[in-house]
Amino acid sequence: MNWPKNKRVLALCGGVGGAKLALGLTQVLGPDQLSIVVNTADDFDHMGLRICPDLDTVTYTLSGLSNQETGWGRANESWRCMEALRALQGETWFKLGDLDLATHLYRRTQLDKGLSISEVTADLCSKVGIEHSVIPMTDERIETEVKTASGWIPFQRYFVEQQCQPVISAIRFVGSEQAKPSPGFTQELANHDLGCVIICPSNPFLSIDPLLSLLGVREQLAKLQVPVLAVSPVIGGKAVKGPTAKIMQELSLEVTGNTVAAHYSDFLSGFIIDSTDAAEAVALPSSLSVHTCNTLMKTLEDRVMLANECLQLATRMQ
Amino acid sequence: MNWPKNKRVLALCGGVGGAKLALGLTQVLGPDQLSIVVNTADDFDHMGLRICPDLDTVTYTLSGLSNQETGWGRANESWRCMEALRALQGETWFKLGDLDLATHLYRRTQLDKGLSISEVTADLCSKVGIEHSVIPMTDERIETEVKTASGWIPFQRYFVEQQCQPVISAIRFVGSEQAKPSPGFTQELANHDLGCVIICPSNPFLSIDPLLSLLGVREQLAKLQVPVLAVSPVIGGKAVKGPTAKIMQELSLEVTGNTVAAHYSDFLSGFIIDSTDAAEAVALPSSLSVHTCNTLMKTLEDRVMLANECLQLATRMQ
Repeated sequence: MNWPKNKRVLALCGGVGGAKLALGLTQVLGPDQLSIVVNTADDFDHMGLRICPDLDTVTYTLSGLSNQETGWGRANESWRCMEALRALQGETWFKLGDLDLATHLYRRTQLDKGLSISEVTADLCSKVGIEHSVIPMTDERIETEVKTASGWIPFQRYFVEQQCQPVISAIRFVGSEQAKPSPGFTQELANHDLGCVIICPSNPFLSIDPLLSLLGVREQLAKLQVPVLAVSPVIGGKAVKGPTAKIMQELSLEVTGNTVAAHYSDFLSGFIIDSTDAAEAVALPSSLSVHTCNTLMKTLEDRVMLANECLQLATRMQ
Repeated sequence: MNWPKNKRVLALCGGVGGAKLALGLTQVLGPDQLSIVVNTADDFDHMGLRICPDLDTVTYTLSGLSNQETGWGRANESWRCMEALRALQGETWFKLGDLDLATHLYRRTQLDKGLSISEVTADLCSKVGIEHSVIPMTDERIETEVKTASGWIPFQRYFVEQQCQPVISAIRFVGSEQAKPSPGFTQELANHDLGCVIICPSNPFLSIDPLLSLLGVREQLAKLQVPVLAVSPVIGGKAVKGPTAKIMQELSLEVTGNTVAAHYSDFLSGFIIDSTDAAEAVALPSSLSVHTCNTLMKTLEDRVMLANECLQLATRMQ
């Protein structure tokens, strides 16, 4: 795929699923052609450390440090600190590997020096050899909470500690009403060289909505004169990973790509669904440029291929 | 040694050297007979964690978790987090092992819940099976600083990062003017069952002076009607470990037990010096009950023996 050298691509993503496509995009676009804006509403303070699950998944994935099997955390990880913490009856529900801990300790140190999360992320990326821009969605604190039968609970308690067991009736992003996008995100949205926006196959309600909830972002996306594409995270009525399908059901939404497209309807111009869902395309709005291909990313080759499919669709839509 | 069941011993100590005698005392006194008050002026905040070197050395020593070779840190330690942090060019000058990190993460979590350092220490002791009371000298923050040619610097920067290389011209305990002893320390000093106070062979200027600098402590020690003993940390003109001798020279003090006794003169009633320094005893004030014995603690047996020597001297002085 020969994407124009002078055109930039803005990818929006959450954790594991989004990071796969982000990795694919880094393989076909140069550092001056791609920026990846990442959800930070899952971030939380834990034992004095700032944990940024989606940012870390993206940076570990792009740098080759990631655990390929789990999709999160680092390869060749060990758990001695967690074992010692368990002996103290400390908080071990959120697993922090010995290597992973270094990232959190480093981030804490840099944040304590007064650096923003954008600055700390850029620094961490440079330290692990990532040349593409990885940008936190905001430098302000936003915290996802989910409403369950026992009230609003912090996202990581739901997602990790309770393993997505509770039924969700609502989702909110505490702090988002007043939060501005980070300087990098703002700059990319306003960039004259922007060629397209790609919404990675992340959970629309948990991973992408936080980005869209930031001041002006949704409106700016709607005004863009360039293609805004999304890759559906739903394949054959199921999510590849995570609680997307379960949450959609609990929110009384049909578990289809069409629901996802409708969720983004005010700004979406292109939509990629898996070949197995080709029959669903007829129900999508005729205004939408729909493309079907394999969207399941098992290998690096799959990631690169999907990245190319996205860029090809964007090119056809120009 | 049959120390009276109903009489309490209050031991004051710093890190490695003091912890050895504290361990000896726990072998001959029951949990209801002994309290160990520990220096916390070396504590510092580092990468978001609260590090308490002397408290940890004492608790690791008493619980059997300590690294016998170094005297600090934990046995069977690993350094994977530090290695990953080094790759990020993070702060690795203060070595935190993977197991040791669990203690600091746990402490941070408990302090963030609003618990005092006394409460957190009692909790940590119970988790690792220590039955004797280990009491931080104060629940307030006091920070040792040393004056060098390049100005006042925090203690751990001097002690660990610069390995005691700079010449010291003064020592101060920032915050100590207004700081009260911890509730446990206050209670022990006022306890009607107090039978004696033992100042462990810790650095008088860095490890014991912080305890003495707390509001009213020095005055209360001077008023006690029971023996107040010290074990000299100087043997044959040298300190067993650490920078005691170097610092004494830099402060233009003679490196002898007599200097240590003079430093404690307003409250000291008994003094134990090593047999090799027996000749120096003649120069000590006649008001002081002096005892000479082996004070070098290489084995557990040595520690127990010195503990017994202390209690025997206190008994003779009643």
